[in-house]
Amino acid sequence: VSAGPAMQVRKAAVIGAGVIGSGWAARFLLNGIDVEVYDPDPELARKLAAVLANARVAMTRLLPDALPAEGKLVISPSVAEAVRSADFIQESLPEREDVKQSTLDQIEAAARPDVIIGSSTSGLLPSRLQSGMRHPGRFIVGHPFNPVYLLPLVEICGGAATTEATRARAEAFYRSLGMQPLSVRKEIDGFIADRLLEALWREALWLVRDGVATTAEIDDAIRYGAGLRWAFMGTFLIYRVAGGEAGMRHFLNQFGPALKLPWTRLEAPDLTDELADRIAEQSDDQAGGVSIRELERLRDNCLVSILAALRRSDFAAGATLRRYGEELAIRAPKDRARIDESQPLALHQTTVLADWIDYNGHMTESRYLEVFGNATDAVLEYIGAGPSYVAQGHSYFTVETHIRHLEEAGEGARLRVTTQILGSDAKRLHLFHALVRDADGTLLATGEHMLLHVDARARRSAAARGGVLKAVERLSKAQASLPVPRGAGRAIGAPLA
Amino acid sequence: VSAGPAMQVRKAAVIGAGVIGSGWAARFLLNGIDVEVYDPDPELARKLAAVLANARVAMTRLLPDALPAEGKLVISPSVAEAVRSADFIQESLPEREDVKQSTLDQIEAAARPDVIIGSSTSGLLPSRLQSGMRHPGRFIVGHPFNPVYLLPLVEICGGAATTEATRARAEAFYRSLGMQPLSVRKEIDGFIADRLLEALWREALWLVRDGVATTAEIDDAIRYGAGLRWAFMGTFLIYRVAGGEAGMRHFLNQFGPALKLPWTRLEAPDLTDELADRIAEQSDDQAGGVSIRELERLRDNCLVSILAALRRSDFAAGATLRRYGEELAIRAPKDRARIDESQPLALHQTTVLADWIDYNGHMTESRYLEVFGNATDAVLEYIGAGPSYVAQGHSYFTVETHIRHLEEAGEGARLRVTTQILGSDAKRLHLFHALVRDADGTLLATGEHMLLHVDARARRSAAARGGVLKAVERLSKAQASLPVPRGAGRAIGAPLA
Repeated sequence: VSAGPAMQVRKAAVIGAGVIGSGWAARFLLNGIDVEVYDPDPELARKLAAVLANARVAMTRLLPDALPAEGKLVISPSVAEAVRSADFIQESLPEREDVKQSTLDQIEAAARPDVIIGSSTSGLLPSRLQSGMRHPGRFIVGHPFNPVYLLPLVEICGGAATTEATRARAEAFYRSLGMQPLSVRKEIDGFIADRLLEALWREALWLVRDGVATTAEIDDAIRYGAGLRWAFMGTFLIYRVAGGEAGMRHFLNQFGPALKLPWTRLEAPDLTDELADRIAEQSDDQAGGVSIRELERLRDNCLVSILAALRRSDFAAGATLRRYGEELAIRAPKDRARIDESQPLALHQTTVLADWIDYNGHMTESRYLEVFGNATDAVLEYIGAGPSYVAQGHSYFTVETHIRHLEEAGEGARLRVTTQILGSDAKRLHLFHALVRDADGTLLATGEHMLLHVDARARRSAAARGGVLKAVERLSKAQASLPVPRGAGRAIGAPLA
Repeated sequence: VSAGPAMQVRKAAVIGAGVIGSGWAARFLLNGIDVEVYDPDPELARKLAAVLANARVAMTRLLPDALPAEGKLVISPSVAEAVRSADFIQESLPEREDVKQSTLDQIEAAARPDVIIGSSTSGLLPSRLQSGMRHPGRFIVGHPFNPVYLLPLVEICGGAATTEATRARAEAFYRSLGMQPLSVRKEIDGFIADRLLEALWREALWLVRDGVATTAEIDDAIRYGAGLRWAFMGTFLIYRVAGGEAGMRHFLNQFGPALKLPWTRLEAPDLTDELADRIAEQSDDQAGGVSIRELERLRDNCLVSILAALRRSDFAAGATLRRYGEELAIRAPKDRARIDESQPLALHQTTVLADWIDYNGHMTESRYLEVFGNATDAVLEYIGAGPSYVAQGHSYFTVETHIRHLEEAGEGARLRVTTQILGSDAKRLHLFHALVRDADGTLLATGEHMLLHVDARARRSAAARGGVLKAVERLSKAQASLPVPRGAGRAIGAPLA
């Protein structure tokens, strides 16, 4: 398939601007495309603005420096006005064939005849939708998923009259918006995605109807389990991996009999040898020679990243993980009593994680400061300046940092930090961290930090409060006779040039 | 339900150690519980070690400092030996009622009568499995999801003879392992999760059988779309949000008619007023008063975090996003020609993201070094020492850093960095970054860095190569007459004490 000349879309028309149409408008605008929207909703402007605001925040977070200048948004008084000068038209009306067909009629009466019309239908057949069109060759389904500005999937499905050029150009256009087109090769009600979603949804409705589970319980059954895998691997690849070393064929042998069990209201097809062979062959193609062990590691890496990301949002499985971590910390044996304050404090250990490694194949520089920052937090907690002190409006801010990078650290290395108190007064705390690799005791880096005590409400320096100040003074005194460590008080050499 | 005395599990027995049983063994061991495993597989030891190695890596990444000392693993020669001194028994045999029943018989012959037996069955009925047991009250289903050591969901389902104490104690035990128990209140084939998964899976098998789509296409239809949402919100909450401001009732009104369409082979229940009311009421309970707009923001935040996490793994939707970002960078207008090398270089801008904010309510210290590191990378790319230079085995490593934190930065602030070349020779590059808030030009921080040119293969210092060295010399010369910026060459004050 030749894509023909690349289509230059400067202006897009959005016809129908509910949740899906507004999402399209946002994706177009954030890609620098001007948009004219038509929808009869009297509250259109307010609702569009709200969706666009969400989209702008989300996409700016994802691609902080990459997005082009936003396109211009115009609300049109009619379908005709909206489509007249458009280079691409996206229709997102309710799922009624008659409504869509009559609107296509209005679109064609005003739009240029070569402009592609994409339909957001979740499952109506393009051959039927285009059947009354004057130029049906330019009609195609481009079915997105909510929120349209964030989810990459768009199903592309042509009808009998759709040209190959339309398909190729629509696919290239959607891809240029950051989307992942999935070509639906065989026209079928519900296409691919919604057939799968609809099966799950209808089974869920039966469960509610039969009083088996509530909507919340049904949602939990997905989001704490299979849903976490579905964010990056579909069912077939997941089951291939679940088959263990023997892969897909083993999985089908083991779970084939369950297809006869009443585990859903949907009857399964007969798992004939022919079907099993077809699945196993397609699954081999899909895996592309990557071993089960490698797929397991890939799956686990993705799950770890997603769980850690959800922990930051403190939501769903991330909230479970956060509570679990706190529970483990409570259960851990406490060594506080054994700390010798006359020696550098050993209060923080960690492990070099995969995403700490940069293009040079070693722990990247900002992670050194992250580890030193966590070690500083451990010291602050030790002297009583932890979260509850901060909640009372007092805190220490780092005002100056000096790091010497002496040796590299690789993924998986266990690290520990020891901290010497170089000095202090009522407002200041001068720390010197040594970062050591556990395995061989190698000194990897040093971090020297000046902290200033602040009144966090006034945002200005202030003396530390009673117990904290006493602890700082006690520690400073206990460590006063330690030798000044090598590298402390050093400046980066004078300019060389 | 009173949980009774908390159950202390020091040793667990794992009966059946395929993918699921091995996953249980790993979760138990990583929680500090000793494990005895029985499985007739002659390759058991090797396979268990492989799963445990994966689990150890994954859980250490997630909870680097929190995990207790690992439990002890013993492979038992028989079911009886494995369960004799166990405080908890988990059965993970193939999904055959007769196999499970006869093994339960062997377990009961050797285990203490009060020890709970959890079954990993995906959907067999506990009332039937426990029907021949001597002490059926201690039998319960605890159905996990692969990989058991990472996914939190465990479905808890008792049979007619299961006691409330067993249910409460099993739930508390699974929860103590970091899991999220879901109580299945009504005993039903396939419980809740597998009924949903099985409906989707059977629909997928029909699509392959009918030649509509391949296994890879079906997987893509999930992982680039709805799968990303299912990682943290189930279908009901997602559809509530999709209803827009009008919520679940609007969604049901709009998509109710589609339940009659042939969008899956599974027939839907009639969406009677009673069923619609029940769903809307349960959905209101589930949302707990959180507005649609708030849920939208929560959904978008989770999606942004997950997409960013998958971008780091360069997999699935993360790979799409990575390519999109690169494509946008290529399309962005190039300003290279306009750079005045006699002034500090302005090569990097960024935005303060939500997860850069720490407990003090401002951009956390390690993110300053991350921004400076990215600004250094922009300079390196500018002088020709970017990715392709690194691929040839040459690179610059930062060996020393000095940061002064002058002002705070809040979420959403646009930042830019300008970089002055303080000096250079064949091996060294001395940079001084100024970090400025775009909105008001406030200087937030300075970063002074000494970089050393290295032979990345030998891992030792070496002179920069031709073109790069020339660019360094040209820049140094062009900026030689700039004044030394305030704060350069400064050491952190001598010890105060």
